[in-house]
Amino acid sequence: ATSKNKLKAFYFLMIFTSSGAGYHSESKAKEYKHVCKRACQRAVDRLRAGGLALEAVTSALMELEDSPFTNAGTGSNLNLSGEIECDASIMDGKSLNYGAVGALSGIKNPVLVARRLLSETQKGKLSAGRIPPCFLVGKGAEQWAISHGIPACPTEKMTTKFSLSGYKRNKRKMELAEQVETKRKRQLCEENNSACLDTVGVVVVDREGNVAAAVSSGGLAMKHPGRVGQAAHYGCGCWAENARDVSLYSTAVSTSGSGEHLIRTMLARECSTAMQAENAHQALLEAMQNKFISSPFLAGEDCVLGGVIVLRCCTCGEAQRSEDIQALLVEFLWSHTTESMCVGYMSAQDSKARTHISRLPPGAVAGQSLAIEGGVCRLGTVSD
Amino acid sequence: ATSKNKLKAFYFLMIFTSSGAGYHSESKAKEYKHVCKRACQRAVDRLRAGGLALEAVTSALMELEDSPFTNAGTGSNLNLSGEIECDASIMDGKSLNYGAVGALSGIKNPVLVARRLLSETQKGKLSAGRIPPCFLVGKGAEQWAISHGIPACPTEKMTTKFSLSGYKRNKRKMELAEQVETKRKRQLCEENNSACLDTVGVVVVDREGNVAAAVSSGGLAMKHPGRVGQAAHYGCGCWAENARDVSLYSTAVSTSGSGEHLIRTMLARECSTAMQAENAHQALLEAMQNKFISSPFLAGEDCVLGGVIVLRCCTCGEAQRSEDIQALLVEFLWSHTTESMCVGYMSAQDSKARTHISRLPPGAVAGQSLAIEGGVCRLGTVSD
Repeated sequence: ATSKNKLKAFYFLMIFTSSGAGYHSESKAKEYKHVCKRACQRAVDRLRAGGLALEAVTSALMELEDSPFTNAGTGSNLNLSGEIECDASIMDGKSLNYGAVGALSGIKNPVLVARRLLSETQKGKLSAGRIPPCFLVGKGAEQWAISHGIPACPTEKMTTKFSLSGYKRNKRKMELAEQVETKRKRQLCEENNSACLDTVGVVVVDREGNVAAAVSSGGLAMKHPGRVGQAAHYGCGCWAENARDVSLYSTAVSTSGSGEHLIRTMLARECSTAMQAENAHQALLEAMQNKFISSPFLAGEDCVLGGVIVLRCCTCGEAQRSEDIQALLVEFLWSHTTESMCVGYMSAQDSKARTHISRLPPGAVAGQSLAIEGGVCRLGTVSD
Repeated sequence: ATSKNKLKAFYFLMIFTSSGAGYHSESKAKEYKHVCKRACQRAVDRLRAGGLALEAVTSALMELEDSPFTNAGTGSNLNLSGEIECDASIMDGKSLNYGAVGALSGIKNPVLVARRLLSETQKGKLSAGRIPPCFLVGKGAEQWAISHGIPACPTEKMTTKFSLSGYKRNKRKMELAEQVETKRKRQLCEENNSACLDTVGVVVVDREGNVAAAVSSGGLAMKHPGRVGQAAHYGCGCWAENARDVSLYSTAVSTSGSGEHLIRTMLARECSTAMQAENAHQALLEAMQNKFISSPFLAGEDCVLGGVIVLRCCTCGEAQRSEDIQALLVEFLWSHTTESMCVGYMSAQDSKARTHISRLPPGAVAGQSLAIEGGVCRLGTVSD
């Protein structure tokens, strides 16, 4: 229906689920591509209906959380006590507002709570001048969500056959690992790590040129209850900043991988900062190499697992010349040190989403090498 | 006893408790100065006994947490449900390791848990290759602490007559505020805000030139349960980074104030980065002005309350000439937009700590103006 109107078709979005070795096997790959496509479609529907970037990232992320195949929302990894505790955050590049939840149980869509926290901060102070929170955790976060009209969801409903069998397998592994020697322990570690990073993220630029980013994660399998990963950490899980006086490009970033490594390197913000350099591909390559794999903050770590999706855009030259002819140049990149990462993307000019399983080059060692790919997309005004 | 040994007297430390209007009144000021002095002494005792910066910040911070007058540990602000939930974090400039707890109840010294998380991350992976957590929240954090030998402490023991009466007063104010018109609400807000920021932080450089920083907070009075503030946020509550190839100075920073503002501006890390500029005073002034008061991340906020203590140091020129003659140049600064801030500091050359209540200049508006002060201290080797 909206295609009948004059439509400024300025939008682009990218989605990922990131994973370790062997997890994006041929059979699984199909599922991941499907869910990425559906998530892209959800975001695009929102954008076509006039929604801005912030609404689009939320819609897409909810779709990803609802998939039983991703480690976010339904189907999340279980923690050491067999419970689901989710992390999620969202950032609006226009207002630079931010919302996050950590170790949240009993809510189907954690990103919805983060989104609601973000919008509540925009409403100003609470009674008696209290500053609204931007980050809530645990039971308090759950209560806040429910009191703000977000329905509760029993953990059993979010637990899948897959997450439960993974928990039992991990538990056996852990019991075994406690008994065996160090060498074998390391091996088990790598097997385990590789299967539990499958978190999700979304970055969007809307028709007004606003960027937004969001991320959601069930966290490491068998994590300690109360552990909060990068997905709920400001500057670490996602970042979005519209262009302003000091910065030419609008940038949006989401990250996935080993939460503690992504926290200590503050990878989302570092990538966003790097994206102000002229050559986006080179800048991201250097950021992943110097600020992540070889980061002084991770000295002594021989296996640094993570992935990022990055979007940057700027208005093209001719925009200044005429209001009728506008174009937005969007560069989109993804990079990862994990074995594989599934990305989906879609622009205003596409009739359907494209998906891709990115893999490390043959012979490259996960956690020490990286893959980097991407593209450029020029969006123009569509009118009829 | 240790003074008989050849002692490299390279240490300096600074401590603060930050507060709003009227809170550092004459009678209170005395108490604050006392506790800052005791905390300095605790750190110095640790350093004289051969402890490094990390141990010294922990000792000093525990003393500050134990004071019923500070909003950290015992005597913390109560949340909306009348409970104590603490945030704390610690960072080691040498290893760049980090530990944090958020919304933690039932533990007398939150910084001790953060410290223990930090040291556990240094031990490498857990069984089955799980990466140790650097950030734990809520009930899970409490359980982790207890299982790591940190004793539980009932909330009643941490609640003081003062925190309880504050809670009752705030509750009445809130009930009143819900009924009255917007203008009066704002006024109540300012009154309330000013009385609840009294958190604590410590920065230290040790005899080896390592820096460390830590921070602890009971959070905003009447905060929502589960709310986590800057004291548990990486890059926001504290930062410590030893000098290395790319950076000439070792820097350590702790922050206090409105948690959400300090989170969104990532003030600790921003100040640390700024401190690599030549003129420390000018750099901190600009950071507080441009990255805090006028930060694009706080656009629309007319009252931005916060304070920082900053320490930076570098080895002096002659250190290269001779191993026997070494000197460390320490610059220490504090700055705040709150009405007042109490700081204490002590160097290896001092026999006792100095304390100072820093206040905004007459006529300056809290949340819009700032005070900045500091000094330089040259530490040499002491031997007998």
